[in-house]
This record gives sequence, structure tokens and C-alpha cells, in this order.
Amino acid sequence: MSQIKGDMLYEGKAKRIFSIIDHPEHVLLEFKNSLTAFNALKKDEMSGKGRLNCLITTHIFNYLQANQIKTHWIKTVSETEMVCEKANIIPLEVVVRNTLAGSTAKKFAIDEGTELEKPLVEFFYKNDDLEDPFVSDDQALMIKAVEKQSQLDQLKQEALKINQLLLVFFKEIGIKLVDFKVEFGVNLAGEVLLVDEITPDSCRLWDDKTHEKLDKDRFRRDLGKVTESYELVLNKIEKVWGQK
Amino acid sequence: MSQIKGDMLYEGKAKRIFSIIDHPEHVLLEFKNSLTAFNALKKDEMSGKGRLNCLITTHIFNYLQANQIKTHWIKTVSETEMVCEKANIIPLEVVVRNTLAGSTAKKFAIDEGTELEKPLVEFFYKNDDLEDPFVSDDQALMIKAVEKQSQLDQLKQEALKINQLLLVFFKEIGIKLVDFKVEFGVNLAGEVLLVDEITPDSCRLWDDKTHEKLDKDRFRRDLGKVTESYELVLNKIEKVWGQK
Repeated sequence: MSQIKGDMLYEGKAKRIFSIIDHPEHVLLEFKNSLTAFNALKKDEMSGKGRLNCLITTHIFNYLQANQIKTHWIKTVSETEMVCEKANIIPLEVVVRNTLAGSTAKKFAIDEGTELEKPLVEFFYKNDDLEDPFVSDDQALMIKAVEKQSQLDQLKQEALKINQLLLVFFKEIGIKLVDFKVEFGVNLAGEVLLVDEITPDSCRLWDDKTHEKLDKDRFRRDLGKVTESYELVLNKIEKVWGQK
Repeated sequence: MSQIKGDMLYEGKAKRIFSIIDHPEHVLLEFKNSLTAFNALKKDEMSGKGRLNCLITTHIFNYLQANQIKTHWIKTVSETEMVCEKANIIPLEVVVRNTLAGSTAKKFAIDEGTELEKPLVEFFYKNDDLEDPFVSDDQALMIKAVEKQSQLDQLKQEALKINQLLLVFFKEIGIKLVDFKVEFGVNLAGEVLLVDEITPDSCRLWDDKTHEKLDKDRFRRDLGKVTESYELVLNKIEKVWGQK
């Protein structure tokens, strides 16, 4: 399979997407070095971040696919680029929380770090102008993010399956998976696929013993050592999962 | 049934609740003249408002009960006081929208007045300190507002039934029911009851032809003629429904 980079189809906050000449069913994802938070009100460049996130996503998507999760990932062709199946993105961010932190801890004035009795799934409507508002199932249907309740149920089930797998994946390397955000798309065959990325940008990852933060909260909250933490996550993954 | 007013059990923004001597299964609801909006950041007194809301609620609860909706209302004993069945309040505000307006129109940047394909039910967690946040079903369960999904489904079904009845009730008097908020409680027998009030404080009511607002938005948005509008609503109700 040759990958001749075509036109840029889309530029997001953390990635660029290109067509691939003669492969209309595929796209090339390029991971950028930019780091943004709070709907891009806070921005920075972090040298090497594109590489770290591309390689972390590669390991995780590879692991998920080996465990019967359909993802858009086909292969990683450089340290910052992967070839993926083309998919229509479902405009919902699907968040799974095992431990309360961030916006939901604040919303209910519950201490960050409170363990949930069972994982909580939340939907946020992907819309920068509206600042990605939190939506209920009925609101998601009202704005036609999807057509039917059964599709929302499918997204929840898939997100919970991914959560079970990721809990094992991170536990194995001494990291506590607090919460994460995933996105889904529908491929040309009509199948729902996990798309986008799974990285310290999209997960809250705490050291299992010290609860030190190893994710984008280091950037959001000006805790320093952002690159070092992302590198630590990749190193832990490569040490344990690189050999499996 | 005698009603000797006992201790004040609770004072809210628009009502006071008293025990009734020798009737522990009942409470007395007294409607106040105060008017508040935006989680009580905006406040005013409106002479005669307690009377208007008490009488409007009386007509509506009477109508709903005649149509097989269980409510806490037993009888109205003065122009501002009603005797009600005692109930444990479920800490959710249940909003039903037929037409978009207010917070949800703003949230999705959809024009106020947009008709919905089907009524939308929303839950807000009743908590002044948290400013009554909008919650999904899963969040409502996480904070234990109720125990089970089936209870949320029951609240939704009941709210939609009430909506169908209120649409008829208001249509008959030339008023368009845009949206409304209701609350539910559980009585000593474990039955779910409609509680609180249904008034121009808790509904958006527009003149069917001119779309003139006849509800609390006149106060929220400084449109004037607040009392006059509430009076108009009561007069229309009494003219048509007082004789049925």
C-alpha cells in the first residue's frame, strides 16, 4: 500500500488530516506539536508531542483491535503519521469516568479523586462555537447528533468495553485510568469505529501509587513537566506492552 | 377536616410550608408574593402574586387530578393556602419543552420559538448551591437523586402525560404552552405524586396569536406588566375552566 499524501482535508487543534492519493477510503492523520486547553483559550507548542501522542495512540489502538474493538487505525507510517480508515465523525465526545475529576467533580462539588460505584458515561456535543456542551441522550437526539436512541446505547456500550480494556492496559503499567474521552465515526460500510486518538491529551492518567498526574492536567493547571510526563507514559507502555 | 397551622417546616423562594396540627400526613402550602429569577440573584415583591399563583395552581391541579394525574393537592383553604399530601421531594426539576426558549435555546444557539419535533424532557438537579445543574439520566443516578433508571423513566412518562393535558388546557384558553417545570415527590404510601405548583412562574406561556409572553420571562427580561399578565392567565382560566 503506497501512501502519497494528498490535500489537507481538515486541521484540528492537535491533528491534521490529509487525503491519500488513489486511496479515497483512507486518510492520513498527522499529529501536531500544539497543546490546547479550555476550548483553545490556552495554547502552547510542545516539541516532540506529536510523536509521543502518535506512538501512544498506535500502541493503544493496536491493543484494542487485538481485543475486538473496531478502530479506524490501519498502520503508523512515521513517528507522527498514521493511515486510518475514512469515517464520518459522530459529533459527540464520549467521556467515561472511573474516578471523579475535572468538570463533573466541579459541577457536583464532589472531591476530585472520589471513586465512582460504576463507570459514568457522558456525552458532549462536539461544537467549538457552543463550547462542546454537555448533553443528555434526549438532547443529543434533539440536535440530531445521531438518529436513534439505540445508536447512543451502542456508543455507551462500546465506550464501557473500551474502558474495561484500558483499565487493564494502564493497571499493568502502574497507571490509574481516572477518565478518558473517545470519539466514534461511521465507515463507508456503515460500521461504528473508534476514531481520533487515545493519549494523555484525552485521558486523565495518575501514577497508581503517588497519584501524580501524567496527563494534560499538567498543562491545564500549570504543573510543569508536561513533555516528561507524556514520555514517561510512552516509556511505560513500550516497556510492558511493546514486548507482548 | 380541620387545618390548624403548625410549625413552619420550610421556607422556599416562592412558598412556605407548615405542618398541620393532628394531621402529620398533610402540610399547608402558603404562596408568597416574592418573585425571584436566576437562582434568586434577581428578586422582587409583587403584591397579589401569592393569590394568583395559588388559584392558578388550584385550577390546574384540579384539572390534572380529574384526568388521572396523582398530585399532592387536597384542597385550597384560602386565596394563598392549600392543604397538600405530605411527600418526600425527589430532588429533580423535570422540564418539558414543546418549543425552544430560555437556557436550552441559548445552549444550542437555536432561535427562541423553534418548534420541537417532539417534546423534550430535561432533568435539573435541585441544589441551590450548585445552581440547579442540568443532568443526564446517568448523572442523576450517580448523585442518587433517585435509585433506579426505571424511576427516571416513570418521571419522564408522567411529565409527558402532564404535558399532553396542559397543552389542551392552555390551547382552550388561547395560550401556547412553550415549556414548563414540574417537581415530583413520594408520599407515605410510596406513590409518586406531582407536587409544588404549576403557574406562570414555572411555565412559559405565550399568547397563541401574538406570542406575547404571559409568564415570569416578563420579570426576568424586564418587560413590565408582570402582575397584569399573571392576572390575565387566571382570568382566562376562570372564564373557560371555572365553568367546567
